[in-house]
Amino acid sequence: MDNKQEKLEKIRHSASHILAQAVLTLYPDTKLGIGPAIDDGFYYDFEFSSPIEEEDLKKIEKEMKKIIKKNLPFNQIFMPREEAKKYLKAIDQTYKLELLEDIPDEELSFYTTGDNEFIDLCRGPHIENTKEIGAVKLLKTAGAYWRGDEKNKMLTRIYGTAFETKEELKDHLQKLEMAEKRNHRVLGKQLKLFALIPEIGQGLPVWLPRGYKIRRILEDYMIKLEEDHGYTHILTPHINKDILFETSGHLNFYKDSMYAPIKVEDETYYLKPMNCPAAMMVYKLEPKSYRDLPLKMGELGTVYRYEKSGELQGLQRVRGFTQNDAHIFCTEEQLKDQINEILDLLNQFYKDVGFDKYRFVLALSDKENKAEKYAGDPERWKIAEDTLRQVLKERGENFEEIPGDAAFYGPKIDILAENVFGKEDAISTVQLDFNLPQKFDIKYIDSNGEEKEPFIIHRALIGSFERFFAFLIEQHGGDFPLWFAPEQVMIIPISENQNNYADKVYEILKDADIRVEVDKRNKSMQARIRDAEKMKIPYIAIVGDKEIETDTVSVRSRLNKELGLMKTQEFIDYLKEEVRTKGNK
Amino acid sequence: MDNKQEKLEKIRHSASHILAQAVLTLYPDTKLGIGPAIDDGFYYDFEFSSPIEEEDLKKIEKEMKKIIKKNLPFNQIFMPREEAKKYLKAIDQTYKLELLEDIPDEELSFYTTGDNEFIDLCRGPHIENTKEIGAVKLLKTAGAYWRGDEKNKMLTRIYGTAFETKEELKDHLQKLEMAEKRNHRVLGKQLKLFALIPEIGQGLPVWLPRGYKIRRILEDYMIKLEEDHGYTHILTPHINKDILFETSGHLNFYKDSMYAPIKVEDETYYLKPMNCPAAMMVYKLEPKSYRDLPLKMGELGTVYRYEKSGELQGLQRVRGFTQNDAHIFCTEEQLKDQINEILDLLNQFYKDVGFDKYRFVLALSDKENKAEKYAGDPERWKIAEDTLRQVLKERGENFEEIPGDAAFYGPKIDILAENVFGKEDAISTVQLDFNLPQKFDIKYIDSNGEEKEPFIIHRALIGSFERFFAFLIEQHGGDFPLWFAPEQVMIIPISENQNNYADKVYEILKDADIRVEVDKRNKSMQARIRDAEKMKIPYIAIVGDKEIETDTVSVRSRLNKELGLMKTQEFIDYLKEEVRTKGNK
Repeated sequence: MDNKQEKLEKIRHSASHILAQAVLTLYPDTKLGIGPAIDDGFYYDFEFSSPIEEEDLKKIEKEMKKIIKKNLPFNQIFMPREEAKKYLKAIDQTYKLELLEDIPDEELSFYTTGDNEFIDLCRGPHIENTKEIGAVKLLKTAGAYWRGDEKNKMLTRIYGTAFETKEELKDHLQKLEMAEKRNHRVLGKQLKLFALIPEIGQGLPVWLPRGYKIRRILEDYMIKLEEDHGYTHILTPHINKDILFETSGHLNFYKDSMYAPIKVEDETYYLKPMNCPAAMMVYKLEPKSYRDLPLKMGELGTVYRYEKSGELQGLQRVRGFTQNDAHIFCTEEQLKDQINEILDLLNQFYKDVGFDKYRFVLALSDKENKAEKYAGDPERWKIAEDTLRQVLKERGENFEEIPGDAAFYGPKIDILAENVFGKEDAISTVQLDFNLPQKFDIKYIDSNGEEKEPFIIHRALIGSFERFFAFLIEQHGGDFPLWFAPEQVMIIPISENQNNYADKVYEILKDADIRVEVDKRNKSMQARIRDAEKMKIPYIAIVGDKEIETDTVSVRSRLNKELGLMKTQEFIDYLKEEVRTKGNK
Repeated sequence: MDNKQEKLEKIRHSASHILAQAVLTLYPDTKLGIGPAIDDGFYYDFEFSSPIEEEDLKKIEKEMKKIIKKNLPFNQIFMPREEAKKYLKAIDQTYKLELLEDIPDEELSFYTTGDNEFIDLCRGPHIENTKEIGAVKLLKTAGAYWRGDEKNKMLTRIYGTAFETKEELKDHLQKLEMAEKRNHRVLGKQLKLFALIPEIGQGLPVWLPRGYKIRRILEDYMIKLEEDHGYTHILTPHINKDILFETSGHLNFYKDSMYAPIKVEDETYYLKPMNCPAAMMVYKLEPKSYRDLPLKMGELGTVYRYEKSGELQGLQRVRGFTQNDAHIFCTEEQLKDQINEILDLLNQFYKDVGFDKYRFVLALSDKENKAEKYAGDPERWKIAEDTLRQVLKERGENFEEIPGDAAFYGPKIDILAENVFGKEDAISTVQLDFNLPQKFDIKYIDSNGEEKEPFIIHRALIGSFERFFAFLIEQHGGDFPLWFAPEQVMIIPISENQNNYADKVYEILKDADIRVEVDKRNKSMQARIRDAEKMKIPYIAIVGDKEIETDTVSVRSRLNKELGLMKTQEFIDYLKEEVRTKGNK
């Protein structure tokens, strides 16, 4: 951490103390939870005696600014355990008393603000004086269980941020506002792409028609792309019998991420957290020879994995999601080509969807512990790791290498992307698997008639359609490339006199497989244009009398570029070309 | 039942006695279960002291024929209960003793064969003499739990059939053989369309690449067809929170068909047995006005319903399946048009997939009990029932009307198809629902600003992709129409000298979106042709030197029709036309 960052953390941690002080000044019977600095700011958890409103945040912020202006010093003091206990009991801070139990020290560290105006159980460090806080802003409240445990009371968490200067705060708030506009949850609602409906379930998004349209287009694209590279696709059920996960080992090492078992007659089923075990069974349906390899078995597989409710986040972190999954069974000699082909597909895909903010991470084994920690033959590990590294290098990719970050069953390449708020998540994976072939006794007969174990590459170009869609929405700010925009053209007749002509153009475009709508609502043309723009429809085709006379449409793109009058066929050709090139001219 | 059928039943029931007699003659320590006549034959359940083999069936059949030849009479006798008990104990027939407990009569009816050669607890009726059995044949064995209860012992069920004459038996066996060739389970395996893998789960089919290809084509076709008629599509998760099924009432009236609950933190989830509750929540996301109606909300929704393991049958009866589901929200005035449109889509779909063996059933309420038994307003029931009947009549459809067969929540039109063995099952449904709008408070604002309840039509053109696929396989005997055949063309070079040319033709066809493969395996041309025919690939394009010289392919269709030499483009046009017209020229 550099000095600037260290200073900022101290400022924010100190601001959280001032927040608590301000709250106690205004609402003296409030109980304090914890109040750390976090990325981009700080928070403090409170148990208020009555709920607080948006209005209250302003009052509290005002009180904080008053405190800051007093130029109060921060000082560390120590109290013996018994004294500390007595003190916290006296001021009736029960949560702090609980925290104290977890600290083994005999002398407890507290920090005072000013002349004991506020005292908090705290290890520090803090700034020296409140005047170092150049700018502070409270942002929002949220519910948070005490100690993150749903069995405990729900406290009120107040989020805020603080900087050395007002300019920095202003910059930050502007960035936040920009990010908020691109936030997939905001755009998802505005553009009617998906919905999270509490009665249906937490972390279980519903794809609304416009979102599902995009998903289906991307699915079809992906299947076609993979078929062109020799993949075939299967579909396996969402629940699998326990024996599969016992065999694979998931019930040993992955149980915490799996849903509770479902009893059916005398059998036990699980919602599948991964598609792999069923894919192995399909491989084994018929004996395989070297002539069958490389065998590329794809699946648009929906999996269900348990995540704590507190960690769910829009489409980015959900409990059920669909992968464009595939298992590639190949020989050692084919390994390099296969990894290259996967990265080719990946690049093609990212380019076609206009996705360019990502980075590669190569997760390797921890050399020293190799033998005991990892499944499979060390020699095969070496081949796999060397091949992954070599391929990335030869392709000239920038990548980070992280020894010790491999799964116990194999090394992998992860592709990470960052959301608008700076949070990073994996979107694609290329994972070697040395566990499954052994567990499921996966073999092929080589050209000498001998049984051999194939290499298995488990790869997902779209690790989760849900999560990838979140990133896609945010990177495009909802302005999707024409080829997968849910509607491509909105026809707007200037008045009802042009309705018939609008319908005619609609039919022609539709027959040419353009996704087109007509807006004949009884609203002003300007209002209808605004609505189409709000839904980020790539092209608006306006038709008035002039257009009827000349058998044209008046086209404007969503970038507010007037393309002027175009013959219908000319417009179709224009659109088709943009779809064909996927906007990559 | 006509006389012929009555006679046949007596013959078969008597044959089952003879089967039991033959078994006891050969394996005296066998315990007898029950032995009824069934459709097309008879069976008898046995507990053998050691397992029997295919070979044993022949021995038993031979013994039966010996008994029949003796011209033994059947006679009914009666025994008082205590005597009957003593007798069955003496011959150690424990299952018969159990059956006796369920018969309330004081005098128990038995039937003797010959001079007490065989005596069985039985109500009859039987034929008079074994000589009336003109022909008998044992067919197969299967496991069957005593009294159909999985908790009981598994007995060996021997199936057979019997007729008055040898000719009738011969005819029947021929028909069975033909049906077996069309049996979707046999073809499913032969054509690699799907697999049932015990380790993955019972009643949970896996779609293999060739089957999934067909499914995906049918899905895309269906979405397009529906979109052209104003449908939009959503996708909801496979597990839903309990509150949805409490609200809908499923947990009351449908619980037996639902899987066990899944606990997640402090919430309870269920695998959804129906897509309706989630669809209702999507409707409610935004207030609706009459301008939004008719609203046609489709979903390719996968549902999970519990079926007893004994009732599972290939793809026809499964535990998890995908529906092309839709909910149509409309006004009373729109109801008739909507039902007509649904039947239009249905006819179009059936015609396009070449499906023509089905019939309509109109399931209506039971007039007398209407008030207490059925959900919703009786007046709306009348409107719905009248409209359904009127539409079917006006369209000139043949349909059966079944009062009392409606669900408690609404009347419906079911479309039934028969499988190769004569078993009938519903494939499509058009169901009115008067329960959901009330349970979920589904409303729209009419043109006068008043809140009203829409009509909800719950329809599935494909009630289950799995089951429909079973029927489709059987009706076509695996010879799928070109437009959804998994591969459309197999190119076979006569020798490796034509491999390059074959690859060239392959690329041209592929670029024209023809689903094409090349078979360059080191096998004789005849063998490769046979393989392509075995996989029922619609067209085989053979290329030799002559074809290279003339820039053609030599085409034969799977109907063994030689189409002769065709220029590649000519061949493409020919295929495209067949795809465009879906074979309906």
